[in-house]
Amino acid sequence: MSELERIQALILESTPVLGREMVHILGSLGRVLSGDIAATEDVPSIDISAVDGFAVSHLSLDGASKENPVVFTIIGESPAGRPCGAAVGYGEAVRIMTGGVIPEGADGVVKKEDTEDRGTTVVCWSNPGRGGNIRLRGEAFTRGDLVLSAGDIVGPVEVCELASLRRAYVHVYQKPVVAIMSTGDELSDFHESSSPGKTMCSTLYGLAAQVLEAGAVPLLLGIAPDSSSEQREMLSEGLRADVVITSGGLSRGKYDFVRETFDSMGVDIKFRNIALKPGKPAVFGAINGTLVFGFPGNPSATMISFEQFVKPALLKMMGRRAAGVAPESPFSAMDSFRLDVVGGNSHLRASLVPCRKPGAGDGKH
Amino acid sequence: MSELERIQALILESTPVLGREMVHILGSLGRVLSGDIAATEDVPSIDISAVDGFAVSHLSLDGASKENPVVFTIIGESPAGRPCGAAVGYGEAVRIMTGGVIPEGADGVVKKEDTEDRGTTVVCWSNPGRGGNIRLRGEAFTRGDLVLSAGDIVGPVEVCELASLRRAYVHVYQKPVVAIMSTGDELSDFHESSSPGKTMCSTLYGLAAQVLEAGAVPLLLGIAPDSSSEQREMLSEGLRADVVITSGGLSRGKYDFVRETFDSMGVDIKFRNIALKPGKPAVFGAINGTLVFGFPGNPSATMISFEQFVKPALLKMMGRRAAGVAPESPFSAMDSFRLDVVGGNSHLRASLVPCRKPGAGDGKH
Repeated sequence: MSELERIQALILESTPVLGREMVHILGSLGRVLSGDIAATEDVPSIDISAVDGFAVSHLSLDGASKENPVVFTIIGESPAGRPCGAAVGYGEAVRIMTGGVIPEGADGVVKKEDTEDRGTTVVCWSNPGRGGNIRLRGEAFTRGDLVLSAGDIVGPVEVCELASLRRAYVHVYQKPVVAIMSTGDELSDFHESSSPGKTMCSTLYGLAAQVLEAGAVPLLLGIAPDSSSEQREMLSEGLRADVVITSGGLSRGKYDFVRETFDSMGVDIKFRNIALKPGKPAVFGAINGTLVFGFPGNPSATMISFEQFVKPALLKMMGRRAAGVAPESPFSAMDSFRLDVVGGNSHLRASLVPCRKPGAGDGKH
Repeated sequence: MSELERIQALILESTPVLGREMVHILGSLGRVLSGDIAATEDVPSIDISAVDGFAVSHLSLDGASKENPVVFTIIGESPAGRPCGAAVGYGEAVRIMTGGVIPEGADGVVKKEDTEDRGTTVVCWSNPGRGGNIRLRGEAFTRGDLVLSAGDIVGPVEVCELASLRRAYVHVYQKPVVAIMSTGDELSDFHESSSPGKTMCSTLYGLAAQVLEAGAVPLLLGIAPDSSSEQREMLSEGLRADVVITSGGLSRGKYDFVRETFDSMGVDIKFRNIALKPGKPAVFGAINGTLVFGFPGNPSATMISFEQFVKPALLKMMGRRAAGVAPESPFSAMDSFRLDVVGGNSHLRASLVPCRKPGAGDGKH
């Protein structure tokens, strides 16, 4: 087990799976089912025709062929959704459409192509056999069948299945709320005019986008200055979240207050110095059930740290069975080598380093 | 070019790229930029320190070493975001933090680890050289640099870059609205009690989920009965959408009115019978700029048809350069073989066939 895997495992040990909530099935897309879904009725609920044609007793067609066709009396019609009341006797047929209910007495459907419809009678020359061209009751799902399981991720196919089982709402795991705070006197936000030495708090927005992409809910606390009391005040507003992430203020310099802030708030620090290249310096702890991540100010280092340490925790909270860095992540290919290439000084505090140099972003389409 | 590719290409020829709209950068996640993004200022906007330490003229440290250190007078401090007014002369130093503005006269920063801070003086024993430990103005982006291009898909890294360029809002391609209608007298919706021969309109919800997953906006028209006039009335409410999809009513049976409905509305039919196995029968046309897809009622066949024919069109509308079946699609592995396995009668009209049999859905986590 690598150092990275060891830290990831320890973070996941501190990570709870969140409770469940009811969402409508279109809102469940991408979420994880928190309970098994069983069929509460047979699907189809009754024998129906799989083709357009004529419902008959297959015995009436014993020995039938093109050369030796059988003529039936048409006693009724069974379009989809409008069952025919009549019962089919020997030598009788009901005109039936795909999805139409098989009438009593019939046990097979002769395809339209194998018949000649004469209005009140029909000539048939092929024997579908018993059950031929019929979709039997319970063929798709039998009442009690386990159709989907707790832990399944809902995609369009699952939405379709849930609908076919008449589940308008389903239980899924709740989404974590992730509070994000950037620190640094040099940081400015969109509404503040740029001035020499001030830099945009781009990490705040990059992290929020990562939270959204992971399927969780960002809560942007904003920018805190290099002051422990002000950081503490802002962070306290984020403690109702499931996860808190700070960016910046983690070096050992005179104006790096985040460790002091965490300590003064009573955060139970589990790692004080995650010693991995891209994540360094980083802090992980917890307070009253809220996970707390302290990352550096450098956008690249912080966004990679998010993928490595926070995202697996968020996925676990949302009920994913095998939490880990998702293979579809745009960051999975961004390793510490790439960080070195793009970020330069990976320990830069609240730096302006863009996540990649202009022109380096190929292969994104 | 296969028959599938030929039809996909012809559909794409009829598909416009939609116009642009402004969205805030967190709302741009997963969207496609409709214009190039250039840096409007240098980033960093001024030379800043990459480390905590002391800003000096590197010439003052000529020949310095551990054995032969140089003592500087500290004339000020430059924390991040609070530039120091003083100019650094020979033998003078400014205490500086990561992100702090390099004072006038200084051209290098000695790392804190290579100094001994005595309060009013500092002993330094390593020469950073000219530019050492400095992040130069424009190092990340120079004003005018092309940072992102029209056609780029916005992910978290792009959000971070846009924020660093102070772009709170960006232009992206609009999302198409996709109207969906299911047809069939045998179909019922959640609020209708199930009765023999009635089946849930699961395809309506499955298609809506696919539209959402593709990043577009579903508009659920509902269930139309097997009546051309009622289908026409419902469909006319969907013509303000960019795309209309119908499910069911496409066979040649007595109660299959969708072709008649399309004809009576004046839909310009471009394919009357897409002859591919999973998509059969299917119809494609256009009316007043709205693309119209007629698919069978069978959920599997319709959902596969969506992936093959509709999704590439939606992606093109949203500005994707290389439209096609996205590799992350849960359907890309679902081919006509799989359809045969799971769906049985792929031409089933408005059937109850689930998209897959219970227990067959492994490897989803």
